[in-house]
Amino acid sequence: MNGADKLCDVLLVNGVDVCFANPGTSEMHFVAALDRKPEMRCVLGLFEGVVTGAADGYARMADKPAATLLHLGPGLANGLANLHNARRADTPVLNVVGDHATYHLAYDAPLTSDIESLAQPMSKWVGRAQTAGDVRRVTEEAYVASVSRRGVSTMILPADAAWGEVEQEDLTRAAVPVAEPAVAGQLHAAAVALKSGKRVAMILAGKALRSDALEVAGKIAAATGASLFSQQSDRHERGAGSVAIKGVPYPVGMAVAALAEFEVAICLGKPAPVAFFAYPDMPSSLLPADCEAIELGSASTDLLETLKLLCSEVGAGSATPVTNPFVQNEIAEPEGDLTPDTIGQALARRLPENAIVCDEAITSGGGFGKFAAGVHVHDHLSLTGGAIGIGVPLSVGAAIACPDRKTILLQADGSGMYTLQGLWTQARENLDVVTIVYSNRSYAILQGEMRNVGVNQFGKNARAMLDLDRPELDWCLMARGMGVEAGRATTIEEFVRLLDSALANKGPFLIEAMI
Amino acid sequence: MNGADKLCDVLLVNGVDVCFANPGTSEMHFVAALDRKPEMRCVLGLFEGVVTGAADGYARMADKPAATLLHLGPGLANGLANLHNARRADTPVLNVVGDHATYHLAYDAPLTSDIESLAQPMSKWVGRAQTAGDVRRVTEEAYVASVSRRGVSTMILPADAAWGEVEQEDLTRAAVPVAEPAVAGQLHAAAVALKSGKRVAMILAGKALRSDALEVAGKIAAATGASLFSQQSDRHERGAGSVAIKGVPYPVGMAVAALAEFEVAICLGKPAPVAFFAYPDMPSSLLPADCEAIELGSASTDLLETLKLLCSEVGAGSATPVTNPFVQNEIAEPEGDLTPDTIGQALARRLPENAIVCDEAITSGGGFGKFAAGVHVHDHLSLTGGAIGIGVPLSVGAAIACPDRKTILLQADGSGMYTLQGLWTQARENLDVVTIVYSNRSYAILQGEMRNVGVNQFGKNARAMLDLDRPELDWCLMARGMGVEAGRATTIEEFVRLLDSALANKGPFLIEAMI
Repeated sequence: MNGADKLCDVLLVNGVDVCFANPGTSEMHFVAALDRKPEMRCVLGLFEGVVTGAADGYARMADKPAATLLHLGPGLANGLANLHNARRADTPVLNVVGDHATYHLAYDAPLTSDIESLAQPMSKWVGRAQTAGDVRRVTEEAYVASVSRRGVSTMILPADAAWGEVEQEDLTRAAVPVAEPAVAGQLHAAAVALKSGKRVAMILAGKALRSDALEVAGKIAAATGASLFSQQSDRHERGAGSVAIKGVPYPVGMAVAALAEFEVAICLGKPAPVAFFAYPDMPSSLLPADCEAIELGSASTDLLETLKLLCSEVGAGSATPVTNPFVQNEIAEPEGDLTPDTIGQALARRLPENAIVCDEAITSGGGFGKFAAGVHVHDHLSLTGGAIGIGVPLSVGAAIACPDRKTILLQADGSGMYTLQGLWTQARENLDVVTIVYSNRSYAILQGEMRNVGVNQFGKNARAMLDLDRPELDWCLMARGMGVEAGRATTIEEFVRLLDSALANKGPFLIEAMI
Repeated sequence: MNGADKLCDVLLVNGVDVCFANPGTSEMHFVAALDRKPEMRCVLGLFEGVVTGAADGYARMADKPAATLLHLGPGLANGLANLHNARRADTPVLNVVGDHATYHLAYDAPLTSDIESLAQPMSKWVGRAQTAGDVRRVTEEAYVASVSRRGVSTMILPADAAWGEVEQEDLTRAAVPVAEPAVAGQLHAAAVALKSGKRVAMILAGKALRSDALEVAGKIAAATGASLFSQQSDRHERGAGSVAIKGVPYPVGMAVAALAEFEVAICLGKPAPVAFFAYPDMPSSLLPADCEAIELGSASTDLLETLKLLCSEVGAGSATPVTNPFVQNEIAEPEGDLTPDTIGQALARRLPENAIVCDEAITSGGGFGKFAAGVHVHDHLSLTGGAIGIGVPLSVGAAIACPDRKTILLQADGSGMYTLQGLWTQARENLDVVTIVYSNRSYAILQGEMRNVGVNQFGKNARAMLDLDRPELDWCLMARGMGVEAGRATTIEEFVRLLDSALANKGPFLIEAMI
């Protein structure tokens, strides 16, 4: 067997059995090895941003990493924006990046580049196999790092490490360090704050936003009077019956106002929330200046156990959390214009049970968001790192992880154009995804930001950079060109008809909503 | 005025008056400043790979850099693959990458990343303005580096350097060091080799492939018996009446055979040619082991002057170069199946004068290439760095640089999918580009490479990663969805009809050739 075979074996024995791929010549021995392993599911993306974003979506839902297969530095580079999002989602991803044979690097062939320098900013772990004999160790290290540190691991596989011969051997799962809860001192500090009578916000992220953890957080809140907030995160199990929690708003002014009253912030899963962007005369931290921040564990902490210990320490075990009532059946059929609000209302009223909602709706997302707490429990996957172009890939990965659940993608048009190639993968894999494109023919969020910097009259160049009309995009044609059936809605009635049909059928469908 | 205004002024006074852009919130002050400068042409790409590839194509044809406007690390990351190609083309490009306000970086906001680490592998120069007061100096350094070193300059513009106030002042063009010819010792060594009676190959790249330089190289070859070869390069002025020159073949075996006879290789504009990829039991260098390589100047050398000095030193001034005869009118109308060969023949026979041919046809390019020497002189722009997805962006940039010339894009389907968003920019800017998509529904080059590694029977996973069918892409629908008119050809007769119509009209048109 060769190094590439060994790599496949190590992946499979550790349960990594999906590989999102876009290979090139330097990875041909790896492709050949994958071809000898039909138990590995290889999924082609027609652009590497699809590959890495799908790996992110897959891991968020499967709770284990997928592998990616990327072609040297440029292939990795094309995938970096969505790896940036994965990094900010604390998602485990295991990149395999091919490289030239080790002895060929000195020749500086056209595709040579500094892969380590490209990988480092978005990876928690970067390593390189020098020989086929290295492959097992390096793959295991990459896997363990991605799982235990919850992040992107990038392993570089030179062609001669892939094609070099290596002994067959019995493989066992690599030992992954068990996640630990927050240390006792921090737990105690948090408990003291919760019992102090001070106004406390518990700001949750990552696995603290899963239903089991939320249940415990809800008990703590009910017993102590603390307020619960969520940060934009990899995956939030939300809906009717789940614990009531508010999101930290995106606009800085609103976020500051929402958190203004708190004297203590207990943050689980992520550091204390900060402004997405800096603005003249606006703060960078969203917490009040005199608010004490207690960071009770990062993404790699056992957050459920941390919450249980905290619950016990504050004596909240028998408290009853405040949960969201089910009001989906009370949501009226929307009337009037086709807008993000009416779209959100129409979707909320018919959201199927156990859906996955991938959300890259940007300025249009609030229409559904305001109903989300009262409808069937669903997983909400959001844009964590601000690098647009995650929506379609995220839906691909989520739908591959959970083939029996309906995936609904809320997609802004400008962001959707970044990785529209993912629609082809939806079609090829016949994924059960309903994509709703909010077609406003502009970078609407940036038009708002221009007004924020004091520009209200847009000239030639501002319009050239912020409008997406002239020509208008036709998402139905583009989707059909990639094998995804599609329909355009210009009224809310048309939208409802298309949505009902899409929800009643399996397989990919795209609705272009002309808002 | 603020730092962003200063940046615009410095760009314009140095003749940088095209900005390919995809901005975000952190660049809003720069967008506002650009909006105050209608003499700057801002061109939106709906993905940063379009932005950077267009800047490459523009600079290849305009012989000066364009600016790009990119949104933090992820925006830069999306543009890196085509910056890799620009780097390998030795093309001047001036990236402006926005970043958070300097004081905001410490908060590690979601879009924060190590921009320098991302930029370094593809850039010859990387710098950062810390304040508005830095902007003039940093912009000038970036500009001068990109022009004098012929490469990618990446300047990072924090939001507070953009919005900070700075004095207005009189600006003058930055002083760019004049390119020098190769040094006398190297010139003398080359001259000695040329006069030695040894078998000499002159291997040209970059500006040595412009017609004026080729003319001089042709004299040297005629007088000394040296053979002329071209390396894959930014821009090759070729066709009837230009000096006869052979390309170094892409397949390693063919390249080695083509260069086997030579005792000396004189390389201008690039180092000696090497294999694109390593293969077991194949060499990395394409030159014979005992061949002496004389590197007579890099991309930043004055190659025309170098050739003139060499011509003089070998006494070839009165020699008559061998030029390609004009045989375009003898090319027959092709008959038979629609294939890369018949497509190439049909195009060759009707290539307009002074065309620009952007070539990302990969396995399909030879059909036109074999006629290229005998048709009207044209510029040939090729994929220099092997990072696929350059074709459509390259056509955008070339057509913006040369609005009065017809741009013809030879586009493989798999590669074309990487940056298909560029079709929208073709439409928005009404660019005079005829795109020919060679639709073979596969990564054909990789299928060949799989056979090279000994796999002839493709299993489930190899087919999953190397075939582009199931579903088939419909390029006409995708093009129309982005505002580009398109037609599908399944026979050579249909192709000819579509091509005649496209050539007779101005504006973008796409032909999907079902080969």
